[in-house]
Amino acid sequence: MTENTRIVLASRPHGAPTTGDFRFETDPVPSPAEGQVLLRIRYLSLDPYMRGRMSDAPSYAEPVPVGGTMVGATVGEVIESKAAGLDVGDHVLSYSGWQQYAVEDARGVRKLDADTPLSTALGVLGMPGFTAYAGLEKIGKPRPGETLVVAAATGPVGATVGQIAKARGARAVGIAGGPRKTAALLDEFGFDAAIDHRAPDFAEQLREACPDGIDVYFENVGGAVLRAVLPLLNEFARIPVCGLVAQYNATSAPEGPDRLPGFVNQVLVKSLTVRGFIQREFVDELYPQFLAEMRAWVRDGTVRYREHVVDGLTSAPEAFIGLLEGTNFGKLVVEVGAARS
Amino acid sequence: MTENTRIVLASRPHGAPTTGDFRFETDPVPSPAEGQVLLRIRYLSLDPYMRGRMSDAPSYAEPVPVGGTMVGATVGEVIESKAAGLDVGDHVLSYSGWQQYAVEDARGVRKLDADTPLSTALGVLGMPGFTAYAGLEKIGKPRPGETLVVAAATGPVGATVGQIAKARGARAVGIAGGPRKTAALLDEFGFDAAIDHRAPDFAEQLREACPDGIDVYFENVGGAVLRAVLPLLNEFARIPVCGLVAQYNATSAPEGPDRLPGFVNQVLVKSLTVRGFIQREFVDELYPQFLAEMRAWVRDGTVRYREHVVDGLTSAPEAFIGLLEGTNFGKLVVEVGAARS
Repeated sequence: MTENTRIVLASRPHGAPTTGDFRFETDPVPSPAEGQVLLRIRYLSLDPYMRGRMSDAPSYAEPVPVGGTMVGATVGEVIESKAAGLDVGDHVLSYSGWQQYAVEDARGVRKLDADTPLSTALGVLGMPGFTAYAGLEKIGKPRPGETLVVAAATGPVGATVGQIAKARGARAVGIAGGPRKTAALLDEFGFDAAIDHRAPDFAEQLREACPDGIDVYFENVGGAVLRAVLPLLNEFARIPVCGLVAQYNATSAPEGPDRLPGFVNQVLVKSLTVRGFIQREFVDELYPQFLAEMRAWVRDGTVRYREHVVDGLTSAPEAFIGLLEGTNFGKLVVEVGAARS
Repeated sequence: MTENTRIVLASRPHGAPTTGDFRFETDPVPSPAEGQVLLRIRYLSLDPYMRGRMSDAPSYAEPVPVGGTMVGATVGEVIESKAAGLDVGDHVLSYSGWQQYAVEDARGVRKLDADTPLSTALGVLGMPGFTAYAGLEKIGKPRPGETLVVAAATGPVGATVGQIAKARGARAVGIAGGPRKTAALLDEFGFDAAIDHRAPDFAEQLREACPDGIDVYFENVGGAVLRAVLPLLNEFARIPVCGLVAQYNATSAPEGPDRLPGFVNQVLVKSLTVRGFIQREFVDELYPQFLAEMRAWVRDGTVRYREHVVDGLTSAPEAFIGLLEGTNFGKLVVEVGAARS
């Protein structure tokens, strides 16, 4: 164990990232100082927001510098500890990025319980699950009998959104790409209806699946789905906006007509609420409640989750590129598989 | 007093209304039944929302039927009463529309106090003032030191929005058309900055007037102002949407590029709140509080108002067409001036 391989941003992508935008670098494994731990990274989370970090367009977070290690949430095993309360063998959630080893301050990590699989800390019990939970608790507020629509619905946010909506008594309509995914929405995640956004009559199918209109549209893709949802929204509908994966690779404003005036008009005539959010806004207020409620839901099967695990850090760039294209099926996690020396 | 002249919708306008879309009709003055009053209409309010009622596009309210009396808020004098608690000579707020006389149920009118001018019940102490108040109380929430921007700022909603924001300790930047109006924003209504939206460097002037960005954009016009505001919005900015007068006459989606994806992206990266509302949503919750606070503000000069009074019901169609073009200066009110027989 002498070398740490990490993946850095080699260049800012223009449009869709390519493997050439990433570069592998190898350094000595660092040593922890007092109050720190050395982690062997077991799992790396890959999430759509990382596309934003590769760009230097103004956003809610600093971009990754060119030459810097790609950021990301990780589950690591403590292999050396100079911090009280963290022992060798403990597993922690950290934000160590795309690499095999990392030194972290003890206060920057969260020790994980052993009662749920480690990788769930990156998915249903981590940032994606909390995004779903906070977006519904604070903005979407699905009520019994209402209809909720979510796209990318087999992804870790979308699947959780639909299942929470069901737990709150609402009807859940999921949108996904292809028959395997739509089947999983019905059979695995318990959605009331599932629609393939690739179908030529997608908008018509969505209308038929929402006979009472749409009360909550959880926006995590952008683009064509929003356009199909818009005419179906009910008065006082809520649109939490947590991501726009369909737009992340866009390089210019799409061709007209300009749909913005019509959108704002719908906001007016239907008294819509459109609210963008980043989950960290609600962490202090809601995280303990989320962990308690979601752990219970995961244990009793109210909320199910699916993971898409790829093997080895070297697989990360291609897996991430596929994530932006929707080729994964479930929460995308890299089993980092550090080479021990 | 035997005839009632009223103005009906002759045809649905395509684009901007013309005087030919209105028609005068004359009927006998109706008689009140038990529990009703006969009103002589003193003042008729003209407001942008009426353009929506002339159209049969889906909206939050039923359209005026072709041949039906144009709707609108009115101040009337009771000239015959068969209702307890309402006496001849009382003045009431009613929703009697574009006509000289009307019979109303007593429970459909609100008796006006004599301590403020009658016409204020249609403006600063009526629906426009309440729109401003409720939009800020429930959505905009200007805080001390924040910057608020409002367009159509010499209008009854905009002027009140700016002055409430000031009363709450925020900075108010007003947008209006032409030097007379921008001067009034500074001299009469106490805005901190005033910008002419007709200036060729409008967007640049707006940027300079908002050195700390924009925290609240009270949207009552749509179109170019929203586009100039968007890049200046701060994280967690709020956009109450109460009207889109610049779009009301639009007949088709404007030419591209499609600005909707960029807008939703700003909603996401800045955690914006965009919320459409019609004032009646908040009437039960806020109206008494509004009347108490706004009456005090009007009496002590914290909130000032300007009226644009046109003479005679026959002037209403042209005055309304001008309202949509921004030619009025202050709350547009028709002094109905019923011909007594």
